[in-house]
Amino acid sequence: MSILKREPGIIIAFDMVDVPLAIELAEELEYAKGNFAIKIGRPFEMQLGHHAIERIKLVTSLPVIYDGKIADIPHISAKVAAIAYRAGADGVIMHGFCGRDVIRAVRELEMGDVIVVVEMSHPGSSDYMELLSDRIANDLEYLGVDGVVLPATKPDRIKKLKEILPDDLYVISPGIGAQGGAVGDAIRAGADYEIVGRAITASDDPAHRASEIYDEMIERWKESSL
Amino acid sequence: MSILKREPGIIIAFDMVDVPLAIELAEELEYAKGNFAIKIGRPFEMQLGHHAIERIKLVTSLPVIYDGKIADIPHISAKVAAIAYRAGADGVIMHGFCGRDVIRAVRELEMGDVIVVVEMSHPGSSDYMELLSDRIANDLEYLGVDGVVLPATKPDRIKKLKEILPDDLYVISPGIGAQGGAVGDAIRAGADYEIVGRAITASDDPAHRASEIYDEMIERWKESSL
Repeated sequence: MSILKREPGIIIAFDMVDVPLAIELAEELEYAKGNFAIKIGRPFEMQLGHHAIERIKLVTSLPVIYDGKIADIPHISAKVAAIAYRAGADGVIMHGFCGRDVIRAVRELEMGDVIVVVEMSHPGSSDYMELLSDRIANDLEYLGVDGVVLPATKPDRIKKLKEILPDDLYVISPGIGAQGGAVGDAIRAGADYEIVGRAITASDDPAHRASEIYDEMIERWKESSL
Repeated sequence: MSILKREPGIIIAFDMVDVPLAIELAEELEYAKGNFAIKIGRPFEMQLGHHAIERIKLVTSLPVIYDGKIADIPHISAKVAAIAYRAGADGVIMHGFCGRDVIRAVRELEMGDVIVVVEMSHPGSSDYMELLSDRIANDLEYLGVDGVVLPATKPDRIKKLKEILPDDLYVISPGIGAQGGAVGDAIRAGADYEIVGRAITASDDPAHRASEIYDEMIERWKESSL
């Protein structure tokens, strides 16, 4: 069973370094209208180590994903993932680029969801990653992972890669807001969740802004299904 | 000026999760015979966040490298690197495969050395990374980084990639010991530093073992220069 509800949702990227602010936002999101999950990035994790994950889990029942962008040898990658899972992470994000043995080592822990970055949202993703992402997507068929990361800044790539990827994987998609993707772009292209960071966390009332963006995304998603 | 002395040395990988043990080893290495540096990996960093780097810096004058395997979009990668530098890291390790804009974003901080992973030491490195590592190595000419990571498990790849890389970059090389590389293999192939983890940190007397391995490496290096 997936840690994420299979309906369109927003994953809020916790990349802030202000710990009290992060905890307050996690508490408030609990009561915000919408389908949300929390993604803990490394700038926030580095404030407290694995305790950062624990502190957020203490105040929320939303799914918590550790966005460690894990990209090490199998032994170390599994060690990092295990620390995150033990701290309460329901899923971890790792790179596909480092090879199948790395994915297998994390998968074999069987401690939570494994989400693999296939392609990223920034321009530099096309320097090297994009040249091999079709192959990575293709290889995922045999690796038993739960989800993938595809770029909201390139909806055409989401469509293309979804044709290659196994149907049962969920797609989460960063790049909405500060990076230039419009709310709803990724969902319309076939993603399950859009990832939003600064557009929510840097606003005056983040929990309220999260609900507004959620509503806007659902609105655009419904338009496209008409 | 490089943070590392330009003579053969050993970088000790701190990937343990036992904080007191790590601090004790850092203290002891200060007095061990040899040319050493300390590399802080994420399993150790995740125990305390950036305080892990601070704690090690407090007890050693050896160069400290944060092996964050940074592999995120430019904005987040720079944020992670800045946190590590501010905590006292003399250098950070980041991936090359996420693209040139990511490398530039970290480089432009000008807060310490930037070391780029070009190829890795585990078998899965050949699934995708090895297909593009020549290109990444080639692009580094224009990016102004300080060092690169090349695999001790594949001395022929060190030789090959060194032909492509700018001469002034130092080469640090993991894969000695538990991963199968023999002490001295990487130095003989042209690396500046060999990275050793478990073979030192999991031994009964790690600081003593570090000196033994250093001597062995120098011995093999001298043999090859005869």
